[in-house]
Amino acid sequence: MPSVKPIEYADAPPKVRAVYDDIMATRKIDWINNFWKVLAHDPATLKRTWESVKEVMAPGALDPLVKEMIYVAVSATNNCEYCIASHTASARKAGMSDAMLGELLAVVGMANETNRLANGYRVEIDERFEPKF
Amino acid sequence: MPSVKPIEYADAPPKVRAVYDDIMATRKIDWINNFWKVLAHDPATLKRTWESVKEVMAPGALDPLVKEMIYVAVSATNNCEYCIASHTASARKAGMSDAMLGELLAVVGMANETNRLANGYRVEIDERFEPKF
Amino acid sequence: MPSVKPIEYADAPPKVRAVYDDIMATRKIDWINNFWKVLAHDPATLKRTWESVKEVMAPGALDPLVKEMIYVAVSATNNCEYCIASHTASARKAGMSDAMLGELLAVVGMANETNRLANGYRVEIDERFEPKF
Amino acid sequence: MPSVKPIEYADAPPKVRAVYDDIMATRKIDWINNFWKVLAHDPATLKRTWESVKEVMAPGALDPLVKEMIYVAVSATNNCEYCIASHTASARKAGMSDAMLGELLAVVGMANETNRLANGYRVEIDERFEPKF
Amino acid sequence: MPSVKPIEYADAPPKVRAVYDDIMATRKIDWINNFWKVLAHDPATLKRTWESVKEVMAPGALDPLVKEMIYVAVSATNNCEYCIASHTASARKAGMSDAMLGELLAVVGMANETNRLANGYRVEIDERFEPKF
Amino acid sequence: MPSVKPIEYADAPPKVRAVYDDIMATRKIDWINNFWKVLAHDPATLKRTWESVKEVMAPGALDPLVKEMIYVAVSATNNCEYCIASHTASARKAGMSDAMLGELLAVVGMANETNRLANGYRVEIDERFEPKF
Repeated sequence: MPSVKPIEYADAPPKVRAVYDDIMATRKIDWINNFWKVLAHDPATLKRTWESVKEVMAPGALDPLVKEMIYVAVSATNNCEYCIASHTASARKAGMSDAMLGELLAVVGMANETNRLANGYRVEIDERFEPKF
Repeated sequence: MPSVKPIEYADAPPKVRAVYDDIMATRKIDWINNFWKVLAHDPATLKRTWESVKEVMAPGALDPLVKEMIYVAVSATNNCEYCIASHTASARKAGMSDAMLGELLAVVGMANETNRLANGYRVEIDERFEPKF
Repeated sequence: MPSVKPIEYADAPPKVRAVYDDIMATRKIDWINNFWKVLAHDPATLKRTWESVKEVMAPGALDPLVKEMIYVAVSATNNCEYCIASHTASARKAGMSDAMLGELLAVVGMANETNRLANGYRVEIDERFEPKF
Repeated sequence: MPSVKPIEYADAPPKVRAVYDDIMATRKIDWINNFWKVLAHDPATLKRTWESVKEVMAPGALDPLVKEMIYVAVSATNNCEYCIASHTASARKAGMSDAMLGELLAVVGMANETNRLANGYRVEIDERFEPKF
Repeated sequence: MPSVKPIEYADAPPKVRAVYDDIMATRKIDWINNFWKVLAHDPATLKRTWESVKEVMAPGALDPLVKEMIYVAVSATNNCEYCIASHTASARKAGMSDAMLGELLAVVGMANETNRLANGYRVEIDERFEPKF
Repeated sequence: MPSVKPIEYADAPPKVRAVYDDIMATRKIDWINNFWKVLAHDPATLKRTWESVKEVMAPGALDPLVKEMIYVAVSATNNCEYCIASHTASARKAGMSDAMLGELLAVVGMANETNRLANGYRVEIDERFEPKF
């Protein structure tokens, strides 16, 4: 059960509705997922977080599908179940196949393994990996 | 300082040299980085880890650059400095620009933020995010 | 389902009951929450953990509400759902409003974001941030 | 060594200088710390992150010192050394004494301990901790 | 709900069945747990992961019970509920008593506490702890 | 650089000296490592933490070497460099060989990998893993 009651569109004050409207227009959907309905209790955080997510996830030097897969990679590493579920759904919508999900999680698993081997043995950074500037 | 002394090629037993040779041949390089030199104290782990990394990072449904960026995303989330340094270098070699690094870390930062908002508020997973099967 | 069966007051041996009694007396409540009932399988850990929590969470240089909010911040970062639920309840009892919870989690989210940007870019500590002594 | 070269004020393009100027004006200081100089390679992330930090850390339902201590709590939990150093310095500037730092980290340590006991034993959330709405 | 449908033995292609058969033969059991049934969607990862687990968890310089307890320690620290449940069951099967589980989790809790105290205070490594080579 | 100056024995107040004396007597050593010298700024935390560590790490259902290895496993997972260095040193003193360290970190790496595969795929806990009580 969430810490605060999700706020439905019908019950939302104008400042919250404006964000909900922008989420639905940007994503071309007709519903609001629970994450935003819960953040709506703190309208400043709702607005700031949505605007940041919209800016960060827009196409740029990386395409949206790659960005969604990076989101899943972080969420699986942190074990945020909500975020794994919602961003796996978004990544599938953006074109991720089962084979791509399999390779994505294989890399995530491997990185988590070698991260602990490198930390556990306290491996020193090779001079050649340092950037030159 | 690492927990065990890195093993140089000249001092390595045949089983370790065989792995070193395969690393250099696969990556078309003429040196071995510290991670493998430290793992060499445990030849079974050296061999298993290298073969897993080689298989996981090979081109497949995802291209190698995307895989390297996912590796950086996990390593930044876990704060494995060695892994951040080495995989940022690999990703650059595979074509990552400064702009791509910037967007990659922006997504990593945002995912870590929303992971904690979702966890902290105990947001429930929307029925619509569940897969149908 | 927990790894061991929670031990109810009626079934508890005297050493466990003594801790349960002190928890109820200290917190002025008439029930024991599941965390302690599960720890009761290991009476030494039950006693040591309760005495540590009692000492650490007592008023001192920081007031109890600030301490409860710091507890929620750590628990949200680690995604310990039990701890988020129980310490959010404690913080509310100690006076945390919805607005305070919103700001608390906004700081937690932001800190998790900038933690990964600082780690991911391997930012060096400014000389001015080092303490002088 | 950071992944990208820090950008000094003298070398910064106008969009970056505008953020640097706002940081110095808001904090009433005459220098820019390395975190922002590194983010400056990605001006959109620099601007968005600074504006978010400024909004989140401003006085509100929680006072700025409490916010800085929550920042330290998260950073210590994640082991972001840069963030620990910089926010410990900020918290001291905002009035945190050695005794307050000691209690803060004592709570952080205790929360990390009980988080793992609760997770490790898979303790179930007590009905009484659930909010009523 | 898992991200992909678990694949039962009856529906599994030959490559997957071969791994399932080896898991049951190695562990002397007649069923397959969900972890492998889900990985089966990505047969390369299924095979690689099973062979790695089989090699790593075999008796060697450490006995299998110690290895299972280390697995629980990591899983409790990461809050991987599936892994806590499955490896607690395996450790019990290998001989772990309630008293051993209690001490195991007490160490895990204590290590997580002192990890944050050491990180939070940025304690420097004593010269005497460095290996000599 | 640590956040507070380590307190040497010669400069320590009686309450701190009493703990230092007990550490040296219990461990049969003639020096104090930095962790305790830094905690000494907060004598209540110094005393409580030392007494907890002494109790938790004493021989019991698990032997001290197994406990030290579990400590290393947690510290490698959390990337607490100080803790990795100090507990690797303690484990070696208690009899850990290079081969044991190798197997220990191999398990830690593998557990971190499968933790993320289990989380990332949201694998459901098998009924058979649940305890019966």
